[in-house]
Amino acid sequence: MIGEIIAIGNELTSGRVLNTTSRYAARLLYGAGHEITAMTTIGDAPADIGKTLRRAVKRSEFVIVTGGLGATSDDLTSEAAGKGLGRPVALQPKVFDKIKARYQHLDEATTRSLKRLAMLPAGAEILHPEGKMAGYLLVHDATPLFFLPGVPHEMEELLRNRVIPRLADWQPTGGKQVRQRVFKVFGLGETEINHRIGHLEKETATSIRIGYYPVFPEVHLSLAVTAVAAALAETTLHRLAGEVQQALGDALYGTDDDTMASVTGQLLQIHGKILATAESCTGGLIGRKFTSVPGSSEYFAGGVIAYSNDLKERFLGVDPALLVRHGAVSPEVAKAMADNIRARSAADIGLAVTGIAGPAGGTPQKPVGTVFIGFSSQNKTIVTPCCFAGDRWQVQELAAVTALDLTRRFLLENTGPTRTTTL
Amino acid sequence: MIGEIIAIGNELTSGRVLNTTSRYAARLLYGAGHEITAMTTIGDAPADIGKTLRRAVKRSEFVIVTGGLGATSDDLTSEAAGKGLGRPVALQPKVFDKIKARYQHLDEATTRSLKRLAMLPAGAEILHPEGKMAGYLLVHDATPLFFLPGVPHEMEELLRNRVIPRLADWQPTGGKQVRQRVFKVFGLGETEINHRIGHLEKETATSIRIGYYPVFPEVHLSLAVTAVAAALAETTLHRLAGEVQQALGDALYGTDDDTMASVTGQLLQIHGKILATAESCTGGLIGRKFTSVPGSSEYFAGGVIAYSNDLKERFLGVDPALLVRHGAVSPEVAKAMADNIRARSAADIGLAVTGIAGPAGGTPQKPVGTVFIGFSSQNKTIVTPCCFAGDRWQVQELAAVTALDLTRRFLLENTGPTRTTTL
Repeated sequence: MIGEIIAIGNELTSGRVLNTTSRYAARLLYGAGHEITAMTTIGDAPADIGKTLRRAVKRSEFVIVTGGLGATSDDLTSEAAGKGLGRPVALQPKVFDKIKARYQHLDEATTRSLKRLAMLPAGAEILHPEGKMAGYLLVHDATPLFFLPGVPHEMEELLRNRVIPRLADWQPTGGKQVRQRVFKVFGLGETEINHRIGHLEKETATSIRIGYYPVFPEVHLSLAVTAVAAALAETTLHRLAGEVQQALGDALYGTDDDTMASVTGQLLQIHGKILATAESCTGGLIGRKFTSVPGSSEYFAGGVIAYSNDLKERFLGVDPALLVRHGAVSPEVAKAMADNIRARSAADIGLAVTGIAGPAGGTPQKPVGTVFIGFSSQNKTIVTPCCFAGDRWQVQELAAVTALDLTRRFLLENTGPTRTTTL
Repeated sequence: MIGEIIAIGNELTSGRVLNTTSRYAARLLYGAGHEITAMTTIGDAPADIGKTLRRAVKRSEFVIVTGGLGATSDDLTSEAAGKGLGRPVALQPKVFDKIKARYQHLDEATTRSLKRLAMLPAGAEILHPEGKMAGYLLVHDATPLFFLPGVPHEMEELLRNRVIPRLADWQPTGGKQVRQRVFKVFGLGETEINHRIGHLEKETATSIRIGYYPVFPEVHLSLAVTAVAAALAETTLHRLAGEVQQALGDALYGTDDDTMASVTGQLLQIHGKILATAESCTGGLIGRKFTSVPGSSEYFAGGVIAYSNDLKERFLGVDPALLVRHGAVSPEVAKAMADNIRARSAADIGLAVTGIAGPAGGTPQKPVGTVFIGFSSQNKTIVTPCCFAGDRWQVQELAAVTALDLTRRFLLENTGPTRTTTL
């Protein structure tokens, strides 16, 4: 079905808050075979809300509306929708009872707040059977409008468990089949990737779309195959995935939900290696990336955030003379950090980063962005000098992802291309 | 001026990529005194692009268009704009020369790619004088349309240095004055905050708008004052800021660009204290938050990511008997971690976190979300038991922010309310 998403809130149009919910909804709906032709964001202005809803009903087969359903005084969506669509809001006593039942003690102010949650446009049908979260369906001129809360995890739950199943019923005859995969690349630019794989789009038996999306510091590309039958879409996608892998080589590190940390961690686990980190300018970011993946304790031991020189000496045993002679940002210190964290933690691999993230601290010899990455394994220690461009956040992100990538490439080279199993 | 923002890209409507550029643009334009009434996201479909542009020109005083200006085959914005507005694209030779001049060696494929960048709608005037990035101004029916690249840092640079100055010239007579401040709160819910400060909106001498935005795990609220004169808007905002602070107390940790880490760091610096961390379940996240702030080396020494029990013993000297008797997730181990990182790093404050982030690892006695935060200073050690609800990401985020907040509150209580200087 062809749908559109409308997000409501002054926090969005003033740029105060990033609209993550529309994107999440678009991704989920796309995956369920629907096409989103427009995503609109408007402020909490009743007239705008009404006009936008009326236009949406006219041009789309379904509409998702998020935000402005809460109990505070700036939540105006229901009232504006009621007015805009000629379905004035009124208290739904059954909904009100359900909401009240979830509270043990109710003072007057809270009761007044909760009442707002039960003031819904005529014909609204709440989505959560126990009324645990705001959100309702309104069918207007035969078009379903799903009103969802702006709170991301509530919106997500309702979308996944209520909206998508309802939409599936709406159109029982299957339409075209879409199969999509995202390929994640580090170390190649968008233009270079386009040169290598752009020709795949010219196939004509099925409709193929390739999108290129820089997601700093990586490039992700989306390959979507549309066909009349699911089997055709799937075999085509499978074949194209092989061609993409051949064209991009090891710069292609994973697909879909993979992250550089999850892929690197998977390789460590497969080969029974334990890694420990010694981070200076990244200040814990590499550890953070590893430990954001469930189960990372299988291969990540931990490490030292040696932000000050003092801690480089105390916890890593870096020779003070080395720090004086070469400076903390030097290949020598990167090597000592990597070797020593490996030895002191008894890990198989020591990964160390020292550099100048900026904005201050640069010199003509070692400008902001100068980073040394030390990689220590049983057989050898490699120090990779880097010179990254960007602000503090970008330099830290580049240093952390490059360190992970070096580890990934080392494991691939020394143990064979096991990554292909994930494609 | 009243404007709107149009973001173009299949990566956005398919939900593949989060649209951060529209939000950034909205924030900057709002701050410059403009009002954004709509933010629209559409796919790379020429007909949609044309229709959306024509509607925008009719209803808005200026239009910002982002995305689809690149050199790859899915970049269709210029061609669609040219067609949709009746200004067919053609090669602008001067622009092409500028772009070519930035490359030393040009093969045929690259030349063809670059040529696409110089194919602009009739009347387009490029924004960057040296053509270092895509982006141009098109004045159509007296309405300025700014076409900007989707790459965030390029868009941001052009918006800040080219678009906003041009818009300021467009309307030399000042209109209404808006002054906005964002208040950042941790530890109070949206409804509770609304109860405490909602009445401020009822003032009538000036127009006051309050927005409530949950930004997990915090709540941010935006207070905007609109008045005919800048001075009135400023004094009103100043007075209201005082009332907000009184109503929210220490749960209000900062304003505008403050983060929990920057505010905590500022307090550490003011009082000459050095902090070191011992992180288990947060895996480096606290260190990451501290070191994302420039200048954090003044008060953050570093620490140990003691993710495995082995590293808790090796680097922090936690007694193995303690780990066996009470488990790694226990008040006893949190205390030992905090005391020992302080002693071994010679810092003034030791901050430790041990817990179960999930999804695995929970038990009936210690379910997922059980976290102990140890805070060690010269005079005392405090262990705070927490039971957080949420997924892995949420538990880690809550644990890290709560640890920072406990540090902040300790410094406030023990040194007086220095935070008020930042309001």
